[in-house]
Amino acid sequence: MAEKVRCAVVGLGRVGYSHAENLATKIKGAEVVAVAAARQERAAAVARELGVDKSTNRPDDVFLDPQIDAVIIATPTSHHRDMIKKAAQNGKHIFVEKPITQTAEEADEATRIVHENQVLCQVGFMRRFDPAYAEAKKRVAAGDIGKPIYFKGVSRDPGSPPPDYIAHSGGIFLDLSIHDYDIARYLLGAEIASVTAFGNVLAHPFMKECNDVDQAVTYLTFDSGASGDVESSRNAFYGYDIRGEVIGTEGSIQIGSLRHHDLKILTPAGKTHDIIPDFPTKFKDAFLLQMIHFIECIRDKQKPSVTETDAKAALLIAEAATKSYRTGATVEIASGVCQ
Amino acid sequence: MAEKVRCAVVGLGRVGYSHAENLATKIKGAEVVAVAAARQERAAAVARELGVDKSTNRPDDVFLDPQIDAVIIATPTSHHRDMIKKAAQNGKHIFVEKPITQTAEEADEATRIVHENQVLCQVGFMRRFDPAYAEAKKRVAAGDIGKPIYFKGVSRDPGSPPPDYIAHSGGIFLDLSIHDYDIARYLLGAEIASVTAFGNVLAHPFMKECNDVDQAVTYLTFDSGASGDVESSRNAFYGYDIRGEVIGTEGSIQIGSLRHHDLKILTPAGKTHDIIPDFPTKFKDAFLLQMIHFIECIRDKQKPSVTETDAKAALLIAEAATKSYRTGATVEIASGVCQ
Amino acid sequence: MAEKVRCAVVGLGRVGYSHAENLATKIKGAEVVAVAAARQERAAAVARELGVDKSTNRPDDVFLDPQIDAVIIATPTSHHRDMIKKAAQNGKHIFVEKPITQTAEEADEATRIVHENQVLCQVGFMRRFDPAYAEAKKRVAAGDIGKPIYFKGVSRDPGSPPPDYIAHSGGIFLDLSIHDYDIARYLLGAEIASVTAFGNVLAHPFMKECNDVDQAVTYLTFDSGASGDVESSRNAFYGYDIRGEVIGTEGSIQIGSLRHHDLKILTPAGKTHDIIPDFPTKFKDAFLLQMIHFIECIRDKQKPSVTETDAKAALLIAEAATKSYRTGATVEIASGVCQ
Amino acid sequence: MAEKVRCAVVGLGRVGYSHAENLATKIKGAEVVAVAAARQERAAAVARELGVDKSTNRPDDVFLDPQIDAVIIATPTSHHRDMIKKAAQNGKHIFVEKPITQTAEEADEATRIVHENQVLCQVGFMRRFDPAYAEAKKRVAAGDIGKPIYFKGVSRDPGSPPPDYIAHSGGIFLDLSIHDYDIARYLLGAEIASVTAFGNVLAHPFMKECNDVDQAVTYLTFDSGASGDVESSRNAFYGYDIRGEVIGTEGSIQIGSLRHHDLKILTPAGKTHDIIPDFPTKFKDAFLLQMIHFIECIRDKQKPSVTETDAKAALLIAEAATKSYRTGATVEIASGVCQ
Repeated sequence: MAEKVRCAVVGLGRVGYSHAENLATKIKGAEVVAVAAARQERAAAVARELGVDKSTNRPDDVFLDPQIDAVIIATPTSHHRDMIKKAAQNGKHIFVEKPITQTAEEADEATRIVHENQVLCQVGFMRRFDPAYAEAKKRVAAGDIGKPIYFKGVSRDPGSPPPDYIAHSGGIFLDLSIHDYDIARYLLGAEIASVTAFGNVLAHPFMKECNDVDQAVTYLTFDSGASGDVESSRNAFYGYDIRGEVIGTEGSIQIGSLRHHDLKILTPAGKTHDIIPDFPTKFKDAFLLQMIHFIECIRDKQKPSVTETDAKAALLIAEAATKSYRTGATVEIASGVCQ
Repeated sequence: MAEKVRCAVVGLGRVGYSHAENLATKIKGAEVVAVAAARQERAAAVARELGVDKSTNRPDDVFLDPQIDAVIIATPTSHHRDMIKKAAQNGKHIFVEKPITQTAEEADEATRIVHENQVLCQVGFMRRFDPAYAEAKKRVAAGDIGKPIYFKGVSRDPGSPPPDYIAHSGGIFLDLSIHDYDIARYLLGAEIASVTAFGNVLAHPFMKECNDVDQAVTYLTFDSGASGDVESSRNAFYGYDIRGEVIGTEGSIQIGSLRHHDLKILTPAGKTHDIIPDFPTKFKDAFLLQMIHFIECIRDKQKPSVTETDAKAALLIAEAATKSYRTGATVEIASGVCQ
Repeated sequence: MAEKVRCAVVGLGRVGYSHAENLATKIKGAEVVAVAAARQERAAAVARELGVDKSTNRPDDVFLDPQIDAVIIATPTSHHRDMIKKAAQNGKHIFVEKPITQTAEEADEATRIVHENQVLCQVGFMRRFDPAYAEAKKRVAAGDIGKPIYFKGVSRDPGSPPPDYIAHSGGIFLDLSIHDYDIARYLLGAEIASVTAFGNVLAHPFMKECNDVDQAVTYLTFDSGASGDVESSRNAFYGYDIRGEVIGTEGSIQIGSLRHHDLKILTPAGKTHDIIPDFPTKFKDAFLLQMIHFIECIRDKQKPSVTETDAKAALLIAEAATKSYRTGATVEIASGVCQ
Repeated sequence: MAEKVRCAVVGLGRVGYSHAENLATKIKGAEVVAVAAARQERAAAVARELGVDKSTNRPDDVFLDPQIDAVIIATPTSHHRDMIKKAAQNGKHIFVEKPITQTAEEADEATRIVHENQVLCQVGFMRRFDPAYAEAKKRVAAGDIGKPIYFKGVSRDPGSPPPDYIAHSGGIFLDLSIHDYDIARYLLGAEIASVTAFGNVLAHPFMKECNDVDQAVTYLTFDSGASGDVESSRNAFYGYDIRGEVIGTEGSIQIGSLRHHDLKILTPAGKTHDIIPDFPTKFKDAFLLQMIHFIECIRDKQKPSVTETDAKAALLIAEAATKSYRTGATVEIASGVCQ
């Protein structure tokens, strides 16, 4: 076997930790040589747990380290632009969480630098690696449902992240709906042409202070003539509820279910299965598979299947949705902009 | 047992025929003494089949017949106003299909005359009688999901009715989405405060000539603070797809499935159940139960559980949705108007 | 319409009452002219409720009444033989609950008298009228799963009937498993050639005093070469659980589910649907459809689709299963005996 | 991290290969230092693919190699006894596929030698590691369904292995039903006290020449008073169908479903999900998790959760079932023998 890809994980929140763990314990083609977090204790604890040599709270220890082949960026979005720049300029391949940057303008800059430095850049739209979504893509592409004419997405978080997170999340369209915008483009093989967005605070009053909502709907039109709608919420008190549907001229595909264990309990109260509680459970395989893909792309010197270009397209749509929600008007997305 | 309620069915299309058949063959408390259709042959054929004495193509034969206790009006909507008037003025109880009239103005007039003549009036929102929706209402009312904060409705027809029907249907919001507007009000126990509506022609180009769409989305806000969305389409080429969902602060309720026979076929191609093909199959029990309720209300001299007032409320919302779709703007519904 | 079939219902337990109610309130081609029960008060109460003129505790009042066209016999099995005889000899058509008689010998006698008097005789194997089982029969017969090679049946009661009922039930094989023996013959279009039966008392100790069990398994072989197994129990504390499966050389069919309302409640405890609680709920449609069939057969002078011959076949198998359980040995069923 | 466990995999059929792949590519605590197969080319090819240094067709190259900590034995059962002996005598920890040996006598010998040499021995009952079965065990143990009184198992292979395999498999009870015997003991926490077994050749005539059947039923009694039945077959032409059910005095648990991708295709032909095609798909996680457990037990010097004792118990039951099938009589299992 070829040598291992030496990785550093920057940002050790729930998602960053999951990336570190996958790389350290499940992907033999990779090794984690450094972890970085804002708090040194956190970095040190994760390093200890996963058997990683180096831990730091100074990102430059990672970006300037010539031993490191690839960085996984899972920090708050406000740091993405600078970190992508620094990583690219130091010749490191990049895996970056969504959204790629805070604004489309920043994304343009990041994209330019990635291209100039000829590093690989993969973006954390893990749904594309979920076996069900991947199979759906195949089935739609094979024409199993005819021509796709409608996309329906539901993404409901089991409660809200803490106010702190919400305040820096960029809002529900940028933080949550963006997954559906990406997967809609992917499944339909079409670009979103306009968005009209709505929002409301239904269960988490603090959202108002954050200038955010806990429930949103986006109505979509596509350049293919298709339409769609995306419901996003923080209010699924019963669990983590992610669903997709593509309606075609000859049939339809439904993606996703709530079932966690493949088990039903039957009592006089009814027949019950437990519900997927959170995204790490729902997308366990997808998280692993996207990271395997990243490592394989580096080893095979191949472009990842989901790149900075996809990231920018989704970001533009999320920005348009945010604007639509604020102005009450439909926002068109200039054709060609999402490429 | 008391004497039977003598009914006449006016309009013998698919829905009217179903009412006639239920009354004639399954409801012992009722008898069908007359049937009327635009074409005398149709009326005569149905009369023969169901053992009804009198058939006619002149509605007045029914409305002026003193032997008749109740009329079931299932004609095109354009006749509803006049027929309701005539029925009420002749002291007949009325079951009328949705929408109650073509316009809210007409509905006001019809309502007034119904009240003046003190006849009972039930409107054909049969979903309320579907055992699943009825159970959902009970569960929501019992607080099983906490406070309801979101309604999600899907109503997909398995293809479009013919152009002829569409041309006189009043448009998708009045003809199809109206069922979801009614059931949303019912399940949430709240009034709809504003609507924003979208539409598109995705699979039936003739819709454009009819100034109609085959796919629509309505975003709703309620006076209780809740929100909701309603998707309506003529494009479910796989079957008849009706679903509802009420999200509450402590849980959620999902109503409806596609399964027709309680049977699965397993082959190497997969595990398959057949899909409910059409509304008569889906709402067989609901159609019968609503008619049983109508007959019982007449015999017990009780107000039906879904009346001309509900009909007018749903009609106002459908009108507002149509206006929103045409203007691109959100339409508010004046508070108090829906009572 | 032709004249109504004048029916009498003898035996007003849960099943008898259900027949009376269906005939009195839902089947326009029939009328109930008399009801009989062991206790006159019960008969009178049911008569009052259903608007029946005559009530009695003397079965002869029914069997000798020349006004009566058909009798529904839903008494304890020990009375069946005599009642069938009396009904047949008085020219009345017969609907009789399963098992047709207590023994195969009695069944022979009853069958002979039915034939001699040329009355129609239908037996209460209502599962054949359940839409799912009926559809399964069609699919198997159409070859959708190839050649059927295995039958699997599960019939679990939600607890046991009272000791009093068990004591006179003839035992679990005669009382409960018999439904699966009948439906197995029906679905496979083959005769059962041998049975080996097991039983155990798992949850209702009183069963031992009744010389009965609350859990049983029967292993079946068919004259077609197929095999099968049937599990029967009184121990489904979660609800009424009836399932069937036919495995063929090209696929399989699964019949039945536990879902009651078409509704799911989602809470942090999981996703739950309620469970069919009892046989009247599960087989509501089947009970009605079998009675409609009986009335139509009388009016059309046609042999019912499930007759005294089927009843005797199932009874023979149940007797063989009982014998096998008692002796511990496989019991062969003489070929040709089940016709 | 501690040093890696150096493993050798002996036998590179479908199961052996899967173990080798898991150890080589997914379990960071292990490395595969040698692979052995009857055909050197096979061993060499697998070694090349997985980056393993050493390949051989002489098992002794593995058993005598002092570099090797643990061996995974996935050869035909006839070699198990000798290989276990040799491995144990050379101080190697052992993972061995089921059945542990061909006969209970051999199992006694193997067990003795394992104990004498104080090596760890884990047996390939991977179902115990399947997340659904593991969760079921937890729920039963927690009393969620009351006292368990019935076990129902279904194991249907999607067609038969080739005649060659069947001829050396020991028969369906030893090869297939044994998984259900083990999981029944595990879930109920009780020992099987007697078995009565049946078999038939329904779809694969060659079975007769192998003195085997393609369809079997075992009726079980447990020392706890519970009962159960196990259906095993090679005739599920629609896919791989594994189900379990535990009925308790307060509810029931159903384990397993056929759904492969979390995806449904809807067309006029119905709503379809694809079916799990084979055991590597169904038990992918279970295979990995059992191997992770084995490696962890070695590193932590802990007894595996499923050992040679469990293996012998299941083997005794399978032998008893085979004898019952051949003699037509119930076979009791001496109490205490399964410990």
